[in-house]
Amino acid sequence: MPYALLIHGGADTRQPESYTDEEAANMRAALKAALLAGQTVLTNHGSALDAVEAAVCVLEDSGCFDAGRGAYLNVDGGHDLDSAIMDGRTGAAGAAAHLHTVKNPVRLARRVMEATSHVLLVAEGAERFAQDEGLEFVGADYFVESGTNVPEVNRPTGTVGAVALDTAGNLAAATSTGGTRERRAGRVGDTPIIGAGTYADNAVGAVSGTGEGEFFLRAVLAHDIAARVEYGGVLLAQAARTALSAKLTARGGKGGVIALDPAGVPVVVFNTPTMARGIVTAANTDPAVALFDEAFPV
Amino acid sequence: MPYALLIHGGADTRQPESYTDEEAANMRAALKAALLAGQTVLTNHGSALDAVEAAVCVLEDSGCFDAGRGAYLNVDGGHDLDSAIMDGRTGAAGAAAHLHTVKNPVRLARRVMEATSHVLLVAEGAERFAQDEGLEFVGADYFVESGTNVPEVNRPTGTVGAVALDTAGNLAAATSTGGTRERRAGRVGDTPIIGAGTYADNAVGAVSGTGEGEFFLRAVLAHDIAARVEYGGVLLAQAARTALSAKLTARGGKGGVIALDPAGVPVVVFNTPTMARGIVTAANTDPAVALFDEAFPV
Repeated sequence: MPYALLIHGGADTRQPESYTDEEAANMRAALKAALLAGQTVLTNHGSALDAVEAAVCVLEDSGCFDAGRGAYLNVDGGHDLDSAIMDGRTGAAGAAAHLHTVKNPVRLARRVMEATSHVLLVAEGAERFAQDEGLEFVGADYFVESGTNVPEVNRPTGTVGAVALDTAGNLAAATSTGGTRERRAGRVGDTPIIGAGTYADNAVGAVSGTGEGEFFLRAVLAHDIAARVEYGGVLLAQAARTALSAKLTARGGKGGVIALDPAGVPVVVFNTPTMARGIVTAANTDPAVALFDEAFPV
Repeated sequence: MPYALLIHGGADTRQPESYTDEEAANMRAALKAALLAGQTVLTNHGSALDAVEAAVCVLEDSGCFDAGRGAYLNVDGGHDLDSAIMDGRTGAAGAAAHLHTVKNPVRLARRVMEATSHVLLVAEGAERFAQDEGLEFVGADYFVESGTNVPEVNRPTGTVGAVALDTAGNLAAATSTGGTRERRAGRVGDTPIIGAGTYADNAVGAVSGTGEGEFFLRAVLAHDIAARVEYGGVLLAQAARTALSAKLTARGGKGGVIALDPAGVPVVVFNTPTMARGIVTAANTDPAVALFDEAFPV
């Protein structure tokens, strides 16, 4: 059986020229490391679920993206972290939102899915559960931006996510974010919402989104893509293109999605100048990464 | 132009025999009062949005349901309130979750929709925004259950919601809840999640759900119903029946939905022994309410 792992480090409204060579190199290295982490799982016949969690953890830890260590500061000078994960095999899902000190939100989302009867935990209750589960916590000094005035150009750019197909034919999706800039305290976007920023169903596909979360929330975008396949009978690639065009671009929203269909056919669509992305498959075992309009297998 | 207002006070797994006469009478009176409040809006050519907000406010204030004043206690002995509202005309949506002292969560959801660029606010940030907006707050003594041991049989039964079609042909949906019993702190269900428990689109229909929220979240149930209409070309009533059967009942989930199609055709489906519901339309201006398997126009 083939495998496939497709990841993103966010759709970005910045122009390619605004990236320094160092920033771009760091992002490419982080994407590659994430692909290798997920690939190790998949080539050892691990689950798609383990692969997306492993890949997203690397992106969270990299400090190169608006997730985990690289999370933006909120208006109160703190960090708000959100994540979701979904198992396409069982339809199980877990998510956590409005976290402040959990190191890897995607690990907490996975624990919510597997160790509770719930799908979404938020705020202190979520952090308390993370303590019960023995997850790792970090202080404010852990985050890249804490207490510094990092120039805009060197700041992390976007939400991260991964979709995978494992050698048993199962799909999974995971997404993690540190929120948007200039948001109100308590704002939650699409990332931890099943159907908005994250969705997986073995019969249809796995989707992870990035961009202006409010547009994804109102459009229920990840599920909208899946529903176009399930009820409209179109291929996942066409569903993603049409949904992005009709329910994001036409409404003035910016962003993109990555997706894998049940056969592992990868889809990448975005309406922003750049989108950090990477892919590795059984057919192309060398990780490929891209940030701009450049050669990329998808 | 016709108008229609359809409301629910929750799908309940209790048997009809477990309701006392007093409880049932109170619930019927609250449903009727909510219908009259929404009907007043609609007959004065107010918006569907105003009508669902007015109806849900009455249900929140009644203390008869698991929303607003009747909200269940959480495991920490406090109250967690969630709500969402969506405008089928514009696709705008607002929601608030993990509130503790906001009297009418549906009003806050409406303010999130209209006075912020966000869709979902949670926890302290949401309460702070409610203060900025001058909304009403209540203390712990406001809630029906506070500090008492109300017998199970007399406890509020369910989430509340409303869908409306106004005389201008616009649809709206709103839902409000006090969460489930025996939940972890920080648990958020489907009610405040656009696409899960609440959804409205003038071209398709308006939907409000009630029941085991985790099943609605994983199935993205309200949007699944809408997508079956939009991409599958079936009528809303069939979409609701099929979605409930395939994505709730078949997976072991309990609950129900109310919905209105763009012509105001009402839909009520549930797989529980009882569901509190009510309807008023331009053709049937006398409010009709039902709790059990009894005469009801839908």
